[in-house]
Amino acid sequence: MKFSQSFIPTLREVPGDAVIASHRLMFRAGLIRKLSNGLFAYLPLGLRSFRKVENIIREEMNAIGSLEIKPTVIVPGELWKESGRWDSMGEALLRLKNRLGADFVVSPTAEEAFTNIVRDELNSYRQLPLSLYQINTKYRDEVRPRYGVMRGREFVMKDAYSFHANDASLDQHYQAQGRAYRNIFKRCGLTVIPVRADSGAMGGSGSEEFMVESDIGDNTLLFCKSCDYAANIEKAECKLDYSPRFTPALAQAAASNTPPVEKIDTPEVKTIEELCTFLKTDAKNFIKTLIYKAVNVELDLSTAPGCKNLVKHKNAPSAPEVYNEAFFAVLIRGDLDVNEAKLAAALKAAEVSLAEDADVLRITGAPVGFAGPVGLNTVPIVMDQTVSAMNDAVTGALEKDKHFRHVAYIRDFSAWLSADIRTVKAGDRCPICGGELYEKKGNELGHIFKLGKKYSVSMGVSYLDENGKSNVPTMGCYGIGLDRTLASIIEEHHDEQGIIWPVSVAPYHVIIIPVKYQGEVQAASDKLKAELEKSGVEVLLDDRDERPGVKFNDADLIGIPFRIVVGDKNLANGMVEVKRRSEKENRLVSFGTAAAELTREVNAAINSV
Amino acid sequence: MKFSQSFIPTLREVPGDAVIASHRLMFRAGLIRKLSNGLFAYLPLGLRSFRKVENIIREEMNAIGSLEIKPTVIVPGELWKESGRWDSMGEALLRLKNRLGADFVVSPTAEEAFTNIVRDELNSYRQLPLSLYQINTKYRDEVRPRYGVMRGREFVMKDAYSFHANDASLDQHYQAQGRAYRNIFKRCGLTVIPVRADSGAMGGSGSEEFMVESDIGDNTLLFCKSCDYAANIEKAECKLDYSPRFTPALAQAAASNTPPVEKIDTPEVKTIEELCTFLKTDAKNFIKTLIYKAVNVELDLSTAPGCKNLVKHKNAPSAPEVYNEAFFAVLIRGDLDVNEAKLAAALKAAEVSLAEDADVLRITGAPVGFAGPVGLNTVPIVMDQTVSAMNDAVTGALEKDKHFRHVAYIRDFSAWLSADIRTVKAGDRCPICGGELYEKKGNELGHIFKLGKKYSVSMGVSYLDENGKSNVPTMGCYGIGLDRTLASIIEEHHDEQGIIWPVSVAPYHVIIIPVKYQGEVQAASDKLKAELEKSGVEVLLDDRDERPGVKFNDADLIGIPFRIVVGDKNLANGMVEVKRRSEKENRLVSFGTAAAELTREVNAAINSV
Repeated sequence: MKFSQSFIPTLREVPGDAVIASHRLMFRAGLIRKLSNGLFAYLPLGLRSFRKVENIIREEMNAIGSLEIKPTVIVPGELWKESGRWDSMGEALLRLKNRLGADFVVSPTAEEAFTNIVRDELNSYRQLPLSLYQINTKYRDEVRPRYGVMRGREFVMKDAYSFHANDASLDQHYQAQGRAYRNIFKRCGLTVIPVRADSGAMGGSGSEEFMVESDIGDNTLLFCKSCDYAANIEKAECKLDYSPRFTPALAQAAASNTPPVEKIDTPEVKTIEELCTFLKTDAKNFIKTLIYKAVNVELDLSTAPGCKNLVKHKNAPSAPEVYNEAFFAVLIRGDLDVNEAKLAAALKAAEVSLAEDADVLRITGAPVGFAGPVGLNTVPIVMDQTVSAMNDAVTGALEKDKHFRHVAYIRDFSAWLSADIRTVKAGDRCPICGGELYEKKGNELGHIFKLGKKYSVSMGVSYLDENGKSNVPTMGCYGIGLDRTLASIIEEHHDEQGIIWPVSVAPYHVIIIPVKYQGEVQAASDKLKAELEKSGVEVLLDDRDERPGVKFNDADLIGIPFRIVVGDKNLANGMVEVKRRSEKENRLVSFGTAAAELTREVNAAINSV
Repeated sequence: MKFSQSFIPTLREVPGDAVIASHRLMFRAGLIRKLSNGLFAYLPLGLRSFRKVENIIREEMNAIGSLEIKPTVIVPGELWKESGRWDSMGEALLRLKNRLGADFVVSPTAEEAFTNIVRDELNSYRQLPLSLYQINTKYRDEVRPRYGVMRGREFVMKDAYSFHANDASLDQHYQAQGRAYRNIFKRCGLTVIPVRADSGAMGGSGSEEFMVESDIGDNTLLFCKSCDYAANIEKAECKLDYSPRFTPALAQAAASNTPPVEKIDTPEVKTIEELCTFLKTDAKNFIKTLIYKAVNVELDLSTAPGCKNLVKHKNAPSAPEVYNEAFFAVLIRGDLDVNEAKLAAALKAAEVSLAEDADVLRITGAPVGFAGPVGLNTVPIVMDQTVSAMNDAVTGALEKDKHFRHVAYIRDFSAWLSADIRTVKAGDRCPICGGELYEKKGNELGHIFKLGKKYSVSMGVSYLDENGKSNVPTMGCYGIGLDRTLASIIEEHHDEQGIIWPVSVAPYHVIIIPVKYQGEVQAASDKLKAELEKSGVEVLLDDRDERPGVKFNDADLIGIPFRIVVGDKNLANGMVEVKRRSEKENRLVSFGTAAAELTREVNAAINSV
């Protein structure tokens, strides 16, 4: 391709809203242009790299036997109602009505579409396992799209869905997907951090996120200084910094020397800090009690305190039965914070959020700030397991300006559910080796997880097993964001001058810069281009009538891995100048062997991963 | 690929709504499945052929220097408001609002997005010509989606847009696109009929549609029995079957012997037929007068009768000025019909439709059925050129139950605009050679046309020409529907048993059928597959434990071009059986040379077009 015949509008200026390197460089190098907030057009150079990422993903999916299909981008709302996600997904789901009044969604993921296709075709266990994928347009109605294609509204995702007769088969494919993901990122030149992740709204357990470190990452990750433990804060665990008392007997024994509960006046005391100062105690001795509202709760609450009037409903004919709304008192040690993702998982709830003031008053009989477990029977008590180790603790007294002290677990209150719901943070201890944990921000590029039977049950998928019995398949789900992956490659591979593409995903492998595109230099440049292209090397020839400095700067900006400068003087000696974008030094190469040499180097670079 | 490891759910039954061969066969062969009305998922086999069509199109676009980009599918409504199409497009445009209340459309075409991108980057004439394309998801909110992917709601289109400094440059690229389209369809094995077409809502002139004949086609085409004239009925012309009198003097002369106009009673006479019987005359002597309402009229009406109160408006800041609504009296010879597409083009209107009864009464002073040009001055008169040849004619008298006879053009009325607005029909004479025209139904697969400056003016695109003067580029626009193209290939290439894929777009080139996939036969089949794949031939190996008859039927149904049957008996003699799907007879080929022989045949078939 000749530069003048392509469309590569490079820029000196940086758009004002481009705060990260990939966003700046994708604009400046003419890879993308903005159509609107969160909506970007890939220009020819950007699209070439995009397609290379796409092809790497396709090759790795095909290699593990996943089959490519192409459902639609606009998907019938009916399918989302069947799965229950029409209701459970928030406003990020872009819903629309057509002229006949039918509901549709612009796909953000495609569990429903794939499950629907398989449901109609699946009869026998002999058809399993079955793994299908698409590489297709997706939409998330982000309120604040930012950072260019890193967090856009429309994007392209590879999403695969697998169907299995048993957990062993699911696990086998899940592992194969994990290996494929590692290959994909390696071939793209990316350093990814695989972390255990909360599977969030997707449901199911057993999941791995593939993260890249990023200052502007959506996710907080915890790493161990001593071992290779890495986890998303939404699921991170830590070594216990206390001795839990998991049996009532142990708790009772611990309470044997604790004075009886005493109600104390705590006027004008609003925060835990103030309370600690007032009582000359430590936050670790305070049982923080928070009232939470949970939405679409699957957990059985039929025996839970205060829940006897709650009734489970189906939000859709084949959706699981849920309580649309339930309240809980959540206890945690005063120096810790509740991890809402863990809490939602423990409650099998779609979402949890702090209750409104009015609900707190109704439930605790007191304004916000005086909740406590002693005597509370209007809602179920959910306790972080740290609380089991507390004794002689301070809590709210369900009364304005009053607290209890000398509170002991089991003796004075008990919990309906005990779970790990604490937020792990930097400085906590690694759950594996006890080393110190530290935090980094990360962006998720890919996510694989075991969905289980959430969709196959709600959408009624079944097959006949070896014994002719009807059975429900278990599912896995595996996504990669292409736009983010591309942007992350640039984040990892750039310098002040521009992008430094890994050869595998570079828009062109070689850029030929004739110092002046005329006469012998032109002829030599054309010949080199023809020779390289004949041997499968992708060449951009900068035939523009620009000063060499402009061409060099643009070559550095757009980041083509190999640069060949063809100039009068060197050519007179039968030489051209070759430089790798990633290296400082250039070298002289014989014009006669330059094409063969660069072909070898390009192929070696691609095949080295 | 082994059959058992793919996902090819073939069916015996035909879905009830599948009335055309391609729809039936795409379902039965497991190429597609329906997600909802007009929304289809491509399964692995269908997607492979789809991608081959896509690649053929991509290769031909790249070959003429068009550059691939990828704008979004969801496009800001603002751009459509700028171009004016937010208002002028009907309900087939799927509009939506996001959670922040911003307007978006699901792209049906992308003039706005491409023009927007180029507008921001175009500075100098040196950047022109510029041709860009995408192959991307589109949506048309069809009220009655039918015929499978032939008329679906979501589909994939290649749409290219070119920008030029002058008409000669536009014409050059337009011709190149035309040649590329002919190559594309030829390589896909399609017989297309290039026809001149009305450019409809797209505006501009100079356009060519690529049609395939189809009983269920959307378009009516007219062909000449004697020459190669072919035209869409919306634009078809015919040889004049009268002597037009284009000058007032000629018309005056013709009227010199015509008796003066006479008003006659015509009670209970409603139709032209009744009037002809009543007056014992022929429909050809009757001037049919229809009142039309036109929307968004660009034509200057400042001097037209009855229009002095009309004011032009801009529907968007940079949109062209239009009259939002205007009425016209349209005259045509009584035996002919008005072609509304031609009428809209003559008026430069977005749309025309017959006026409501109340408007007819207001404009003509009489109920529907008595309109006529004599004495009519409330609206401009638009006359089909046939009327200029009429003399001593009958018309409505602008009064209930009254007609005029002996009406003569010029002497008794004149027209504000004369144009060819008649509907040409079977039996009319070819405008080229005078031969008889006949009709066929056709489906449009592709359309190329010269847009002119409609979008570049309305959206404010400009560049500096050689003299440093600001100038507006002229544009062309070139579309192909991929899904329709694929379905049309099947329409043209099938028999009772199934699809007969052209080799260039077949999902696999060769299907190997082991009579029983075990022992020597299995080993030989695997070896053949490996050899063929090594030489670049795409192979499907039917390894299923099914009766040979089932495998043969499926092979015929899915239409793989070459079939190799590996059986015990032939293999004992060192032979396998080879059959082309398109031929009746099979032949025995030596097992040792079968791979080489089929590789040659496959490559020969692909390269022959």
